[in-house]
This record gives sequence, structure tokens and C-alpha cells, in this order.
Amino acid sequence: MFVLSSPSGAGKTTMSRRLIVDDPEIVMSVSVTTRPPRPGEIDGRDYHFIDDAKFDELLEAGELLEWATVFGHRYGTPREPVQDALHAGRDVLFDIDWQGTQQLQQTDAGSDLVRVFILPPGMGELERRLRSRGTDSDPVIAHRMRRAATEISHWGEYDYILINDDPDLCLGEIRAILKAERLARRRQIGLAGFVRDMLAKT
Amino acid sequence: MFVLSSPSGAGKTTMSRRLIVDDPEIVMSVSVTTRPPRPGEIDGRDYHFIDDAKFDELLEAGELLEWATVFGHRYGTPREPVQDALHAGRDVLFDIDWQGTQQLQQTDAGSDLVRVFILPPGMGELERRLRSRGTDSDPVIAHRMRRAATEISHWGEYDYILINDDPDLCLGEIRAILKAERLARRRQIGLAGFVRDMLAKT
Repeated sequence: MFVLSSPSGAGKTTMSRRLIVDDPEIVMSVSVTTRPPRPGEIDGRDYHFIDDAKFDELLEAGELLEWATVFGHRYGTPREPVQDALHAGRDVLFDIDWQGTQQLQQTDAGSDLVRVFILPPGMGELERRLRSRGTDSDPVIAHRMRRAATEISHWGEYDYILINDDPDLCLGEIRAILKAERLARRRQIGLAGFVRDMLAKT
Repeated sequence: MFVLSSPSGAGKTTMSRRLIVDDPEIVMSVSVTTRPPRPGEIDGRDYHFIDDAKFDELLEAGELLEWATVFGHRYGTPREPVQDALHAGRDVLFDIDWQGTQQLQQTDAGSDLVRVFILPPGMGELERRLRSRGTDSDPVIAHRMRRAATEISHWGEYDYILINDDPDLCLGEIRAILKAERLARRRQIGLAGFVRDMLAKT
């Protein structure tokens, strides 16, 4: 389970999309949300857009691995697609915030979590990026900036910290982390057998 | 401190040289040895070639971080160049065996050791590579193969395990591990200040 967190505007969503496009071994966990779609967002790709009743239902059935309320809307991670992907030996990418990360850590699979936090190069740059989207009013941007400061204050709970000065370099760093973590001895399940067979031939 | 271990012939020395050529942030720890130079080996690059009396002197003065006897010759890692490089904020690459790795782990700096083990794709391939060097007699190759089996049996003491099917892919994996480990939160010493300054501006 590979978590990417960052304040809104630091480039996390763009990174996630680019990452899954050229790495067939990793699949994206698509969250459910009760907030309405923004222009350009596609149901099933960006989120599964559901109503409050459906969210309550999933929550009560224990079908959400983690969930949080942000700006008055609820977001959550459906359990089943994640479990299916992990059982099939694939990695799962989560585009979630510090609250979701903490909850994921506490699940059964939480012991094999890789947590990456993407910092913006500075708060001024973050604000410029939020404004350049052209979708939010001044009070909404002020609210997002306060939320960004909260999110950033949790950087110490992550395994890797990246500073997104340049999206291409940052993506290269994420790929290096994925590659390295896959080479970790404890994740190479078939290796003990491979070495045993190899040494048996001497 | 970045350790590369592998049985002789699995490609470790070639990898190490290629790695330091294009990464100015890492320096190679050059071992001392009492064995005579092989054709093509350069004093100060491959090893510091010293006699037994000098080795004893270094050992007694506590100037060796680790040492081992292999094929009747002694090998050791001089402490000072390693400490100087680490103090200067550089990474240090060690081309040492499992015995050296265990000893390095027990030094003061051992808490920040990254241990990488390179496996050959198979014992047959390893023997072919040893024979293709053309420098060793049959009994020496048989001895090296037994030693390789011992070395390989220590794979479980390493953080990352690579299989050297293809030297270019393997080098790419080593680079990814180095890149990722440098992005680990606990190694980014200036980050707390960077984040504090960033948040102070909001």
C-alpha cells in the first residue's frame, strides 16, 4: 500500500495519474465521496460520487478502510477493491490525507504501508498554484491555505518527504521509492525458495 | 553508509565503479589488503596494498572499521576516510562481504547502514563468469564457488536483494535504492527547519 499525501495544489493528483499510466503493477484506489463532481472529474476515475445515504450504508457495513470529512463532505476508501488488488499481488496507490493515512496504518494491511509526503516549494507557490486553477473564490482559497498548513504539519508521520520543485524530478523520485521498496528483502516473498534451489545445485 | 555485497563474480565491483563515476554525492571506501595486486588493479583505487606489519599496526591502533581474512589474506576498511566523508555529508559505498557488513553494523555509524545484496541469476552462471575471467585455476574456482555459497547463505541479513540478470537493470535498481534512501524523512536533516519557516509565513 503506497500512500501519497500532500496539501491540495502540491501536485499529488497529477503525480498519481502519471504514475499509474506507465506502471502496470500499481493500481489506484478510487475513493468514494459525497461531494459533487468538479468540472472535468469523471465518476469512477477521480471518485465514485455517492450520496449521504449510500456513504452511511458503506460505513455501517464496515466497507470503508478509512474515511474523513473535509469541507463538510465525506470521503472514504472502499475496502474490497484494495483487498482484491493486494491479493492479486499488485501494489495499491492511495491519494489520501493525513487522517486517512493514520487510519490505513491501523488496518490489518497497515504493516506494509509506504507513506510519501509531497511538500510544495513554499506557501506562496502553493497559493499561486491554487489560484491558477481559477476554480476557487478568495475565501475558499484562504480556507484551503489554512488546511494546507494543517496537512503539512503532519509531515513527520511519513516515511519519505519530497519537495515538488519540478514535477518531472518529483515523479522520478516517486518511481525510485516504488522501485526500491519492491526490492526490499521482506517484500520478495519467493526469494527464500529461489536461494534454496540455487544453493542446492552446488 | 551503503553496503554492496555479493559473491565474487556476481558483478559487485563493476557496479560499484559505475555508480561512483556518475554520482558525485557518494564516495567509495577503499579497503586495505595484504594480498598482492592482481593484473589491472591499481593501488589506491582498487585497494591500498599493504604488508602484514602495516595491517597489524592499523588493527592495533583501532584504525579499521571492519576486517576479515579471506583465502589467507587480510582485508580491512580504514576508519578515517569514511568518517571524513560522512562528516562532509557524503554517502560512502562499501564493497565488502557479509563478515564486514556485520562488523560495520556494530560500529557507531552502523545505525545508518543500507545493506544491498546482489545475487547471481544462478550458480551455473556464476561459475561461467568466474571462468571467463581466465585468471583462476580449477581448484581456485571450486574454492570460490564454495565461498560464494557461504556468502549467499547470508542474504537474509541484507535490506535489499537484487538479482543481477542484466547489469544495466541492476545498476538502475541500485540507483533507485540510493535515491529513495536519501529521500527518507529521517535522513533529511534540514527539513524540520524548512517546514517551520514555510509554515511561519502563513
